[in-house]
Amino acid sequence: MEQYINLYKEFRQKIKAFEYAFWLMSWDQETEAPNASVDYRSKQFQVLATESYMLESDPKYIEAIEKLYENLDQLEDEDLKIEIKEANKGLRIVKKVPKDEWIEYQVLTQSGSHIWAQAKEKNDFDMYAPTLEKIVDFNKKLVKYLETPELKGYDILLDMFEEGFGVKEYDTFFNTVKEELVPFVLEVTSRPKQKFNRRLSKAVYPKDKQSEFSHYLMEVFSYDTNKGLLKESAHPFTSGVSSVDTRITTHFYENNLASAIFSTIHEMGHGIYEQQNDPKYDDTALHGGTSLGIHESQSRMYENMIGRSFAFWKTHYAKLVECFPKQLKDIPVEEFYQYINQAKRSLIRVEADELTYSLHVLVRYEIEKELINGKLKVKDLPRKWNQLMGQYVGKRPSTNKEGVLQDIHWSGGAIGYFPTYALGSAYAAQIYRSMNKEINVEKVIEENNIAAINAWSKEHIHKFAQTKTPKQILQIATQQDFTPKYYVEYLKEKFSN
Amino acid sequence: MEQYINLYKEFRQKIKAFEYAFWLMSWDQETEAPNASVDYRSKQFQVLATESYMLESDPKYIEAIEKLYENLDQLEDEDLKIEIKEANKGLRIVKKVPKDEWIEYQVLTQSGSHIWAQAKEKNDFDMYAPTLEKIVDFNKKLVKYLETPELKGYDILLDMFEEGFGVKEYDTFFNTVKEELVPFVLEVTSRPKQKFNRRLSKAVYPKDKQSEFSHYLMEVFSYDTNKGLLKESAHPFTSGVSSVDTRITTHFYENNLASAIFSTIHEMGHGIYEQQNDPKYDDTALHGGTSLGIHESQSRMYENMIGRSFAFWKTHYAKLVECFPKQLKDIPVEEFYQYINQAKRSLIRVEADELTYSLHVLVRYEIEKELINGKLKVKDLPRKWNQLMGQYVGKRPSTNKEGVLQDIHWSGGAIGYFPTYALGSAYAAQIYRSMNKEINVEKVIEENNIAAINAWSKEHIHKFAQTKTPKQILQIATQQDFTPKYYVEYLKEKFSN
Repeated sequence: MEQYINLYKEFRQKIKAFEYAFWLMSWDQETEAPNASVDYRSKQFQVLATESYMLESDPKYIEAIEKLYENLDQLEDEDLKIEIKEANKGLRIVKKVPKDEWIEYQVLTQSGSHIWAQAKEKNDFDMYAPTLEKIVDFNKKLVKYLETPELKGYDILLDMFEEGFGVKEYDTFFNTVKEELVPFVLEVTSRPKQKFNRRLSKAVYPKDKQSEFSHYLMEVFSYDTNKGLLKESAHPFTSGVSSVDTRITTHFYENNLASAIFSTIHEMGHGIYEQQNDPKYDDTALHGGTSLGIHESQSRMYENMIGRSFAFWKTHYAKLVECFPKQLKDIPVEEFYQYINQAKRSLIRVEADELTYSLHVLVRYEIEKELINGKLKVKDLPRKWNQLMGQYVGKRPSTNKEGVLQDIHWSGGAIGYFPTYALGSAYAAQIYRSMNKEINVEKVIEENNIAAINAWSKEHIHKFAQTKTPKQILQIATQQDFTPKYYVEYLKEKFSN
Repeated sequence: MEQYINLYKEFRQKIKAFEYAFWLMSWDQETEAPNASVDYRSKQFQVLATESYMLESDPKYIEAIEKLYENLDQLEDEDLKIEIKEANKGLRIVKKVPKDEWIEYQVLTQSGSHIWAQAKEKNDFDMYAPTLEKIVDFNKKLVKYLETPELKGYDILLDMFEEGFGVKEYDTFFNTVKEELVPFVLEVTSRPKQKFNRRLSKAVYPKDKQSEFSHYLMEVFSYDTNKGLLKESAHPFTSGVSSVDTRITTHFYENNLASAIFSTIHEMGHGIYEQQNDPKYDDTALHGGTSLGIHESQSRMYENMIGRSFAFWKTHYAKLVECFPKQLKDIPVEEFYQYINQAKRSLIRVEADELTYSLHVLVRYEIEKELINGKLKVKDLPRKWNQLMGQYVGKRPSTNKEGVLQDIHWSGGAIGYFPTYALGSAYAAQIYRSMNKEINVEKVIEENNIAAINAWSKEHIHKFAQTKTPKQILQIATQQDFTPKYYVEYLKEKFSN
């Protein structure tokens, strides 16, 4: 066993070093690399990726994983057991999917986002449809290749993004959303619109002052700048490679004050999660968030439940006014709070507010399910999309650009990913409620003591990195299985007022 | 032959991909990587560097180089011939230096800069001396291992940094500096000091405005931001990996307006050189500047001969005043020009002005020569340093921190590097004179047409990348061998007024 453990660790170390290089190349590409350097970089990437693939598919490495998996109970290191289980699961692809088909699919999904971007630009769904059809077809084949007595069809894809969550779990969740939230949202968004001071949406908010406020927020949230940094990029994201290097980005719009504030807070939620992973996992395959849903629960809780709370702005609005004295003159904190918590029927998911967000995801979930089980054809997507948007969000897009073409995900092969976005918000409500039993969350927010929230989250969620499944994390943090009940309660309470 | 060519190219491609990763890791480290990430990065670096070393020392790769070198005249591709010659020269180390000694030296010089930094901090030469002694001793052995009938002693080290330049060439150069410049500088710097408006050195120049002016300079110099970028770092530098990705940095001091301006222009000189390399060399081992001296000739010419010229500021001072209306109020361009061209006796090389700069280098050259030929011992360095500073610069340091401990170079094993700094300035004067015969340089500067200077430099210097030696570049650009005459003439004319 000793020899297989050493072999496994030796390969893992090398593979991680390559991953580090890829991580940095992608961070650079997304934040500052000069335009003309794209081809040169991708040439170097291909060479290194080939070297790395040679390691990952090395028969010695595969043998080590298999032998260790067969003798899992002989392993004393509990973390290593978890790693080996995951590594063995990862071998499914190599073993069950014909290599040629898999490589063909990689090429397809690599060029997919280019084709999607052009189609979106031109508002031309037909341009995108053939590619999307191939992607859907492959995924239908993939789930056949990977099916087991326990896991079949769309469940396999869902499980890849959120372990333990399949159609059964998501159906329960989305049925609650449909029954409880859809009518509530339609009611709330049909009320007469509140009027706000024009300056809130029309004044110019200079970039350097917005940046100053974002840096202030980093202090407020105790985001550790010794182990990360904030930079600007086209679309905000978090990019972590170890607990000591987890970076975030935001984007400043001079005519939109709220955008950068909530992007920065959202990404800090992701960032603090990985910064607070136990550092002992940095050198293992277990560093990072355990799932997309749990990751999103952290970013959504920080952004919406903390960042958009009245308690938060009671304490920090003065600093915002200090940054923008003219723009925010005579606008009371109450008005600002209402302004950043408006609920609207909108077409674009990434711009949707806290209340309507999960309905956008619901539309995508129902579509994915039918695509994979064969009930829906790619050519019928736009019709279906528009119909569901009307039904759940109360607004039908007039173009595909604002409809089915808006998201990049499917073009890269990510089917089964969207549902985790809504799940994350629901996890957040359940986790918040549980945390609130131990610490008075509103009070610590108002007292500018978010460090207390970070400390609780570290103990109950963050430190475990990938050693617990999402379901285990929920048990540890809330002593309950997942339930959407608190999410619905939270939204109804907040948006009834 | 075909088979060796293919083998060579295959290895080269892989080695370049690793170099790309190392380049990016170092760029990231120097510009933004979070402090706490240092150890994690260096662990990944070591793993990748080992993989890369395996390639570089692979017997198949070495065999390919040797076979191609033996049959050089059979190669049709002239560029490949040059590459193979260089690659074969690179094999000297592997073949002639005992591996253990070489590795021990790598470890020594890797930790050297840490020890140097601590010793400098504490102004404690004795702390640094044992390390420096080992470095000098190894270099004395190294030149023995590498000596050939043509090249011996210090010449070998000098040639590593500037091909074709040895003690004979440098002695000629530095003797002229000693005879012509030393007395001239001592005379100029003993004149009564000019008085300047206090605001020039005492006002606050906000960072964002300095950054705006640096970006304006990038347009003025046609630095291609599609193939590079400007960022801030502790010490300004240029970092290029291909013609399509050559990045520069600068540093903004709020109390020093001139620093960032001339750092930005200096680094653009380096940057434009590599951006204008023929792109066909991007995938070869021939991309980059041909030598440190030629590289420095470009940065010094852009910084001093263009950037500090009156013609330049006649055209661009208005923009500077626009950025700093209060700070520069009532300060005429003539006064600003005089201010940025003061000559002073100073102790620190990197802060020295254009006139006195080469005298700082002269001190280091004489010391290095005596260290390697055994006439000077490390323990006697401080005494010798202070004596030469008094003699050539007219000012003796009172501490070693401001004396022999000021530069990092020797601690990393770079002996033979310093002389290229002075040589670069002298090259610049010779090249400028030659260019001025074909285009009226002052006129194009004043007409804001620096693109014409870039175009000339591309044709005569930049496009060749590493395919020509420094001596060949001088012949192409000036139809002459190197002569320090124009450098002395230029300085005497500029600083006589």
